[in-house]
Amino acid sequence: MDLRQLFATNLRRLRHAKGMSQDELAFEAEMSRSYLSQLEKGKFHVSLKVLGRLADALEAAPVEFLKPPEV
Amino acid sequence: MDLRQLFATNLRRLRHAKGMSQDELAFEAEMSRSYLSQLEKGKFHVSLKVLGRLADALEAAPVEFLKPPEV
Repeated sequence: MDLRQLFATNLRRLRHAKGMSQDELAFEAEMSRSYLSQLEKGKFHVSLKVLGRLADALEAAPVEFLKPPEV
Repeated sequence: MDLRQLFATNLRRLRHAKGMSQDELAFEAEMSRSYLSQLEKGKFHVSLKVLGRLADALEAAPVEFLKPPEV
Protein backbone atom coordinates (compact mmCIF):
# COMPACT_ATOMS: atom_id res chain seq x y z
CA MET A 1 0.00 0.00 0.00
CA ASP A 2 1.36 3.39 -0.98
CA LEU A 3 1.31 5.72 2.01
CA ARG A 4 2.67 8.86 0.38
CA GLN A 5 -0.69 10.54 -0.24
CA LEU A 6 -2.06 9.59 3.17
CA PHE A 7 1.03 11.06 4.81
CA ALA A 8 0.91 14.20 2.62
CA THR A 9 -2.76 14.85 3.43
CA ASN A 10 -2.18 14.49 7.16
CA LEU A 11 0.97 16.62 7.06
CA ARG A 12 -0.93 19.48 5.37
CA ARG A 13 -3.82 19.07 7.83
CA LEU A 14 -1.52 19.19 10.87
CA ARG A 15 0.48 22.15 9.57
CA HIS A 16 -2.68 24.13 8.84
CA ALA A 17 -4.07 23.25 12.27
CA LYS A 18 -0.95 24.85 13.80
CA GLY A 19 -1.28 27.88 11.54
CA MET A 20 2.32 27.40 10.35
CA SER A 21 3.68 28.27 6.93
CA GLN A 22 5.84 25.81 5.00
CA ASP A 23 8.80 28.09 5.72
CA GLU A 24 8.21 27.98 9.46
CA LEU A 25 7.70 24.23 9.60
CA ALA A 26 10.70 23.52 7.38
CA PHE A 27 12.87 25.61 9.69
CA GLU A 28 11.58 23.94 12.86
CA ALA A 29 11.90 20.43 11.41
CA GLU A 30 15.36 21.14 9.96
CA MET A 31 14.61 20.50 6.31
CA SER A 32 14.46 22.63 3.20
CA ARG A 33 11.16 24.22 2.25
CA SER A 34 11.48 22.57 -1.13
CA TYR A 35 11.68 19.10 0.44
CA LEU A 36 8.71 19.86 2.71
CA SER A 37 6.70 21.11 -0.24
CA GLN A 38 7.37 17.88 -2.10
CA LEU A 39 6.44 15.81 0.96
CA GLU A 40 3.12 17.66 1.07
CA LYS A 41 2.57 16.70 -2.56
CA GLY A 42 3.18 13.02 -1.85
CA LYS A 43 6.40 12.79 -3.85
CA PHE A 44 8.50 10.88 -1.31
CA HIS A 45 8.30 8.10 1.22
CA VAL A 46 9.63 9.70 4.41
CA SER A 47 11.55 7.72 6.97
CA LEU A 48 10.34 7.51 10.55
CA LYS A 49 13.30 9.71 11.44
CA VAL A 50 11.88 12.61 9.44
CA LEU A 51 8.35 11.82 10.57
CA GLY A 52 9.56 12.12 14.17
CA ARG A 53 11.10 15.53 13.49
CA LEU A 54 7.86 16.75 11.90
CA ALA A 55 5.85 15.41 14.85
CA ASP A 56 8.10 17.33 17.26
CA ALA A 57 7.88 20.55 15.23
CA LEU A 58 4.09 20.29 14.97
CA GLU A 59 3.66 19.06 18.56
CA ALA A 60 1.57 16.24 17.11
CA ALA A 61 1.39 12.55 17.97
CA PRO A 62 3.24 10.47 15.33
CA VAL A 63 0.13 8.35 14.83
CA GLU A 64 -1.64 11.44 13.43
CA PHE A 65 0.46 11.24 10.26
CA LEU A 66 -1.00 7.89 9.21
CA LYS A 67 -4.62 8.36 10.22
CA PRO A 68 -7.13 7.53 7.51
CA PRO A 69 -9.19 10.48 6.28
CA GLU A 70 -12.41 11.10 8.19
CA VAL A 71 -15.53 10.30 6.24
CA MET B 1 11.20 12.05 18.93
CA ASP B 2 12.72 8.66 18.17
CA LEU B 3 10.08 6.34 16.77
CA ARG B 4 12.17 3.20 16.36
CA GLN B 5 11.13 1.51 19.60
CA LEU B 6 7.47 2.45 19.17
CA PHE B 7 7.51 0.99 15.66
CA ALA B 8 9.39 -2.14 16.82
CA THR B 9 6.94 -2.81 19.64
CA ASN B 10 3.94 -2.44 17.36
CA LEU B 11 5.52 -4.57 14.64
CA ARG B 12 6.11 -7.44 17.08
CA ARG B 13 2.57 -7.05 18.46
CA LEU B 14 1.00 -7.16 14.98
CA ARG B 15 3.11 -10.11 13.85
CA HIS B 16 2.25 -12.10 16.95
CA ALA B 17 -1.45 -11.24 16.54
CA LYS B 18 -1.28 -12.84 13.07
CA GLY B 19 0.57 -15.86 14.42
CA MET B 20 3.33 -15.36 11.86
CA SER B 21 6.99 -16.22 12.28
CA GLN B 22 9.70 -13.75 11.31
CA ASP B 23 10.50 -16.02 8.35
CA GLU B 24 6.92 -15.91 7.08
CA LEU B 25 6.54 -12.16 7.47
CA ALA B 26 9.93 -11.44 5.91
CA PHE B 27 8.94 -13.53 2.88
CA GLU B 28 5.54 -11.86 2.52
CA ALA B 29 6.95 -8.35 2.94
CA GLU B 30 9.88 -9.05 0.59
CA MET B 31 12.71 -8.41 2.99
CA SER B 32 15.39 -10.52 4.61
CA ARG B 33 14.65 -12.13 7.94
CA SER B 34 17.77 -10.48 9.28
CA TYR B 35 16.47 -7.00 8.37
CA LEU B 36 13.06 -7.77 9.89
CA SER B 37 14.70 -9.05 13.05
CA GLN B 38 16.62 -5.79 13.38
CA LEU B 39 13.50 -3.74 12.74
CA GLU B 40 11.82 -5.60 15.59
CA LYS B 41 14.75 -4.64 17.80
CA GLY B 42 14.40 -0.96 16.94
CA LYS B 43 17.71 -0.71 15.09
CA PHE B 44 16.47 1.19 12.02
CA HIS B 45 14.12 3.96 11.01
CA VAL B 46 11.95 2.37 8.30
CA SER B 47 10.63 4.36 5.39
CA LEU B 48 6.91 4.57 4.74
CA LYS B 49 7.55 2.36 1.71
CA VAL B 50 8.64 -0.53 3.91
CA LEU B 51 5.95 0.26 6.48
CA GLY B 52 3.36 -0.06 3.69
CA ARG B 53 4.72 -3.46 2.65
CA LEU B 54 4.57 -4.68 6.26
CA ALA B 55 1.01 -3.36 6.62
CA ASP B 56 -0.02 -5.28 3.50
CA ALA B 57 1.66 -8.48 4.65
CA LEU B 58 0.08 -8.25 8.09
CA GLU B 59 -3.29 -7.02 6.76
CA ALA B 60 -3.02 -4.21 9.30
CA ALA B 61 -3.86 -0.52 9.07
CA PRO B 62 -0.68 1.58 8.71
CA VAL B 63 -1.73 3.68 11.69
CA GLU B 64 -1.32 0.59 13.90
CA PHE B 65 2.46 0.81 13.57
CA LEU B 66 2.66 4.15 15.36
CA LYS B 67 0.04 3.67 18.05
CA PRO B 68 1.23 4.48 21.56
CA PRO B 69 1.34 1.52 23.95
CA GLU B 70 -1.86 0.91 25.86
CA VAL B 71 -1.60 1.69 29.53
